[in-house]
Amino acid sequence: MSGKLVLIGCGPGDPDLLTLRAVERIREADLLLYDRLINKEILNHAGSDAKVDYVGKRCTDGGRQQAQINEQIKRGLEKGQTVVRLKSGDPMVFGRAVEEIAMATETGSELEIVPGVTAVLAAAASEALAITERAEIQSFIITTARTASDAHMPDWATMAVPGSCIAFYMGVAQAWRIQSSLMTVGVPGTAPATWVERAGQSTSRAINTRVDRISLTAMEQIVENPAVLIVRYPLSLAAHQAMGYSSKGAIGQ
Amino acid sequence: MSGKLVLIGCGPGDPDLLTLRAVERIREADLLLYDRLINKEILNHAGSDAKVDYVGKRCTDGGRQQAQINEQIKRGLEKGQTVVRLKSGDPMVFGRAVEEIAMATETGSELEIVPGVTAVLAAAASEALAITERAEIQSFIITTARTASDAHMPDWATMAVPGSCIAFYMGVAQAWRIQSSLMTVGVPGTAPATWVERAGQSTSRAINTRVDRISLTAMEQIVENPAVLIVRYPLSLAAHQAMGYSSKGAIGQ
Repeated sequence: MSGKLVLIGCGPGDPDLLTLRAVERIREADLLLYDRLINKEILNHAGSDAKVDYVGKRCTDGGRQQAQINEQIKRGLEKGQTVVRLKSGDPMVFGRAVEEIAMATETGSELEIVPGVTAVLAAAASEALAITERAEIQSFIITTARTASDAHMPDWATMAVPGSCIAFYMGVAQAWRIQSSLMTVGVPGTAPATWVERAGQSTSRAINTRVDRISLTAMEQIVENPAVLIVRYPLSLAAHQAMGYSSKGAIGQ
Repeated sequence: MSGKLVLIGCGPGDPDLLTLRAVERIREADLLLYDRLINKEILNHAGSDAKVDYVGKRCTDGGRQQAQINEQIKRGLEKGQTVVRLKSGDPMVFGRAVEEIAMATETGSELEIVPGVTAVLAAAASEALAITERAEIQSFIITTARTASDAHMPDWATMAVPGSCIAFYMGVAQAWRIQSSLMTVGVPGTAPATWVERAGQSTSRAINTRVDRISLTAMEQIVENPAVLIVRYPLSLAAHQAMGYSSKGAIGQ
């Protein structure tokens, strides 16, 4: 007897950013697992017979907590249940989905993943920010700003080329490192940067700043996670920067 | 008298990947504009009084077509209408939203952007592909694979570092260039690559391959756009590669 595991991307928070498919799958759940990033209104879509369990606590050991969630998923699947795990945003974007998918494989259960709206898309929509733009921004990067080793230049720094936009998830504690790494690789201090706290939630807050003030702005405005930082480096800004350098050179002569 | 412009991300195709908010806004449209990438079932959410207009044609001059769409949006807004423009995927991801947003500004109209599920998230969900993974893939890139100049190494090539995943949108015609650029910057030929045709649609097709066969696979399998190519370069693969090189060196001595 094998169950079915459904990982659902619930979007960034607002209950109406759920997809129709997500609503349908929540209705079918025998066991519904959610954590603190999930808006409670979303739970109202559950059927009356569903067992609804809170599995997230603030400030606990993340690894141990995940092991407990995995165990609970496995037990449900072994009973033949339809286990629905609600994920903030999209399950495959920093959602630790890989470990939970393994539970479906181990128990020989069916697996379904329902994609969702990831936070930066909600931030870009509410602020009308061009995260891609024809002839201006051709590549768009999502990163956590963390690196395996603190001693090295972060890997994402090589991605900050003209024509790129980088979204940093949960980057508040890394604000200074983000700012200094970007400037070290040559992103102009005037490049536009926007902090969006609680993107896609009714209480969201956006603060426009620039690359050389990313850290200062975060401190002054007391920006807190969940937050997305969006840094844009359009081609025209790089061209402008190059012209600026040559005119300075001419004056200096 | 000023209208309201709503840009809606409809997701990658399947009508049940619409968000609840998108459904609600489609119901409120006076004028509903859609193109060939939008599933026709989505139009059923429109009210009975709405004018529903097809604005996309295959193989026409993209720039001229966009100018006509912009003009039509502007006329509707000037009449005080709620103009709803349906976009495939998410409006801010290669959706040419900037030009349409300008119409709202020009006419002093209200603007709302509804985010949607972008194609690669649907592809990752249906194939259970880890586009991010704890301690393996820390950055995730979306790009069109095109560059301003064909003479240079594409900008995104610098992003193909260990710990990254790159999604190429509409990259079929660029398959050889993608493959050769990735290998030139050192991505191992064995790195996993997946073509997903019509991601997020009921007729989607996924083909697993590897970096040194991206182009061959596209030709042999006759992959057609709309397609997403997902290339993953996890940290463990880079570590494995480094070990391979040193053992070869040892044998050679």
